[in-house]
Amino acid sequence: MHRLNGTNEGPCSGLRSWVRLLRLWVVLAFGAAAVAGAPAQAGGLKVSTFTLKNGLQVVVIPDHRAPVVTHMIWYRVGSADEPAGKSGLAHFLEHLMFKATKTRKSGEFSKIVARNGGRDNAFTSTDYTAYFQRIAKDRLELVMKMEADRMTNLVLSADEIAPERAVVQEERSSRVENYPSARLNEKLRAVFFMAHPYGKPVIGWPGEFKTLTLKEIRDFYERFYTPNNAIVVIAGDISEKEVRPLAEKYYGAVRVVSQTGPRLRPLEPEPDVARRLLMRDKRVTSPSMRRLYLTPSYGKAEPGEAEALDLLAQILGGDTTSRLYKRLVVERKISSGSAAWYSGGGLDLGHFGVYGTALPTSDVAAVEAEIDKVLAELVADGVTKKELEGAQRTMVAEAIYARDSQSRLARIFGSSLTTGETVRDVLEWPDRIKAVTVEQVNAVARKYLRIERSATGVLLGPEKQGAPAPKAEPAPKGEKT
Amino acid sequence: MHRLNGTNEGPCSGLRSWVRLLRLWVVLAFGAAAVAGAPAQAGGLKVSTFTLKNGLQVVVIPDHRAPVVTHMIWYRVGSADEPAGKSGLAHFLEHLMFKATKTRKSGEFSKIVARNGGRDNAFTSTDYTAYFQRIAKDRLELVMKMEADRMTNLVLSADEIAPERAVVQEERSSRVENYPSARLNEKLRAVFFMAHPYGKPVIGWPGEFKTLTLKEIRDFYERFYTPNNAIVVIAGDISEKEVRPLAEKYYGAVRVVSQTGPRLRPLEPEPDVARRLLMRDKRVTSPSMRRLYLTPSYGKAEPGEAEALDLLAQILGGDTTSRLYKRLVVERKISSGSAAWYSGGGLDLGHFGVYGTALPTSDVAAVEAEIDKVLAELVADGVTKKELEGAQRTMVAEAIYARDSQSRLARIFGSSLTTGETVRDVLEWPDRIKAVTVEQVNAVARKYLRIERSATGVLLGPEKQGAPAPKAEPAPKGEKT
Repeated sequence: MHRLNGTNEGPCSGLRSWVRLLRLWVVLAFGAAAVAGAPAQAGGLKVSTFTLKNGLQVVVIPDHRAPVVTHMIWYRVGSADEPAGKSGLAHFLEHLMFKATKTRKSGEFSKIVARNGGRDNAFTSTDYTAYFQRIAKDRLELVMKMEADRMTNLVLSADEIAPERAVVQEERSSRVENYPSARLNEKLRAVFFMAHPYGKPVIGWPGEFKTLTLKEIRDFYERFYTPNNAIVVIAGDISEKEVRPLAEKYYGAVRVVSQTGPRLRPLEPEPDVARRLLMRDKRVTSPSMRRLYLTPSYGKAEPGEAEALDLLAQILGGDTTSRLYKRLVVERKISSGSAAWYSGGGLDLGHFGVYGTALPTSDVAAVEAEIDKVLAELVADGVTKKELEGAQRTMVAEAIYARDSQSRLARIFGSSLTTGETVRDVLEWPDRIKAVTVEQVNAVARKYLRIERSATGVLLGPEKQGAPAPKAEPAPKGEKT
Repeated sequence: MHRLNGTNEGPCSGLRSWVRLLRLWVVLAFGAAAVAGAPAQAGGLKVSTFTLKNGLQVVVIPDHRAPVVTHMIWYRVGSADEPAGKSGLAHFLEHLMFKATKTRKSGEFSKIVARNGGRDNAFTSTDYTAYFQRIAKDRLELVMKMEADRMTNLVLSADEIAPERAVVQEERSSRVENYPSARLNEKLRAVFFMAHPYGKPVIGWPGEFKTLTLKEIRDFYERFYTPNNAIVVIAGDISEKEVRPLAEKYYGAVRVVSQTGPRLRPLEPEPDVARRLLMRDKRVTSPSMRRLYLTPSYGKAEPGEAEALDLLAQILGGDTTSRLYKRLVVERKISSGSAAWYSGGGLDLGHFGVYGTALPTSDVAAVEAEIDKVLAELVADGVTKKELEGAQRTMVAEAIYARDSQSRLARIFGSSLTTGETVRDVLEWPDRIKAVTVEQVNAVARKYLRIERSATGVLLGPEKQGAPAPKAEPAPKGEKT
């Protein structure tokens, strides 16, 4: 339970893919003409949204293939909203949301869901915290009732906190400390974001989350868990007409407990220094490198820039036909895997990433040097019209296969609506992708793929005793002056 | 006016030297037997401290060589105490403290000091904000009256803020943006401190300090400018007997306006990844490198560790007899200057730094490689008893020459008392230096001079067109695994 998602979606997380695919699927299914508040029809599906008097927004996505529903509640609060020095608070509260409320015992929430044949889970990101249940449609009322209950009736007690701290510590050990790549990525983000709280791990710095007090957790809960800060997304065998009275009965009855105000986070300074991190660990058998370039996010980008970055990532390293894969894996045979991605789902900032793993017969410096060559060629000569059209087709084609997952659909709406996008933005996304030109892709490549905007992490195995010294790292290219 | 001091004292700032020297001078002059609250005599001088009922501490250091006094007030607040996203607030408030109070017009404070033959100034650090006046002894009462007035009577208005913002912007341009080394150092600190607010520039990130509102500045002032958060240090032609009634009359009358509470800052995670930054700038004619290793500060170190780090820095790179200078400048002739320092004056954390500049005939990679060799030899073989005794003697001898500056003396007490040390700590420092053993120096070298605890900044000139590519950077040595 309690999966943890940062915004550092890399080539291994799979998160990027479904976010991108689901954007597409939504529109393909519903038609790009749909707008918020005006249900659109396509393939027998409708998407509706309405807002209760207390400010809670509801999104309904009927999907009648099976008599089940996915019910999610999204709070506009994540690790980037934590007070300074309280890293891990948003995620820790997510865990504590499964404890006692005024009417229910600790742990009862998930037990009731399971007893009714459903399953539930939750996750915390930099910008949102979400809870979901997948359950038979006739049990929707039950989960809405319970979710509305824990929005403001949670009983936070010192007795619950101590043992749950150990659970989070164990989660941290199993997800971060035991994996050299996770440890490096955590520090890479800390160095990539020099001031913005996206540089903090969602699970918290180990020394800090241990110090969180009952009062701090309660203050955070009382500030951010309020209906005007929440979005309920329901996908499944249900209509807006059925949802509305239930939403009004349960969520409409929840009192506004605070005004959360604008989400102003520390600003990231304009990046002007190339950064590198090097970590050695004896468990590493395949050395690798990963580089992040600072970009805007979908919520803050100039029109078309985020879409162009998504297409650029596809062309550069989206699959086995991409430039990086062809050059490093197929032609040069120095890498077992290489990828590029655009992570544009943050409220404030995004990044463009590249990645490469060395083979036992190559070294990571050669991999990085080749990636640098591919990047330099791309920036100098641009992408071709054929490549762009191929990427646009691929993204559309992939979307066809993404239509199966109800919960993914709920997730794409929830994550988009909590990070500065509207229902309309989600629905119109494929049209915007199709409208991107070669010039736009080349412009974002030149603008953002600059070494001084980047941080590079290099992961190596242990230094061998008596072996020759490892090859020098390639020097980052300097800014043009 | 308004000098700005961070804690990133490097070999060029001179700050390290006087801090260290003044520690020594105090004790040599007063005798190490002196303790807080019990005035000690040596060479005709006494040092006293007492605390007023409202919590304001007063330190008196008589110095009768001339009929002048140095009057300082130190507030236990600096940039590391700012709310997240409000970088530059402490320093901006320092500027605004020269504006109007309920009884005085904007700018009048400094004009009155000047009209009375004195001079005044102020500075902000990560951990403290200080204001001082040097003036004829018979005007001490005047400056105490004015300083007590602006502690709680400042009138902050929107009219004052806008033009002062431009002044700070200009200060930032002239001190940071126009100097590639300052720009690099700012980012080096941001990467060196991955979570702790010491990573923020004291002057603020440019985008952020522009957004500070009148309310935020006022809240900060009302929280931290209160007698229980202040220390007054008076050095000069004056006695405790003369100071006490004046202190009670002016500072004693200031009402406590808030309880500031413990100074809890975001924790820095244990460093486990070597970091590197590379910046090119066309104005750079002498490429250089600078590396910081995370260490404890005097206020938080295990007994003897901070002193051992100070001695280690002296042996490694304190002057022209040090290991770095002899090897790089004299023997290898590849560097025009090289140094090491220990910056231990922070409330929470310190650093050990090394630095080297290339000659036109060498390159900075060779300089760094040689520094790495010297460091590796030092860690492997340790320092000699002769070196240690020489460093101890040097630090004592230097202190003799440091006895001339009254204001420096006031500064060392103020900075020490606002960063976790006591009067006794300051007074006993030379005895602790003298007691450090070869084993203690070698232990801190092994413990802290580890590449995974460090961030290295490399500053280069522009890439030359058509010239061979710059040499690859040396790879940081990995951690032992």
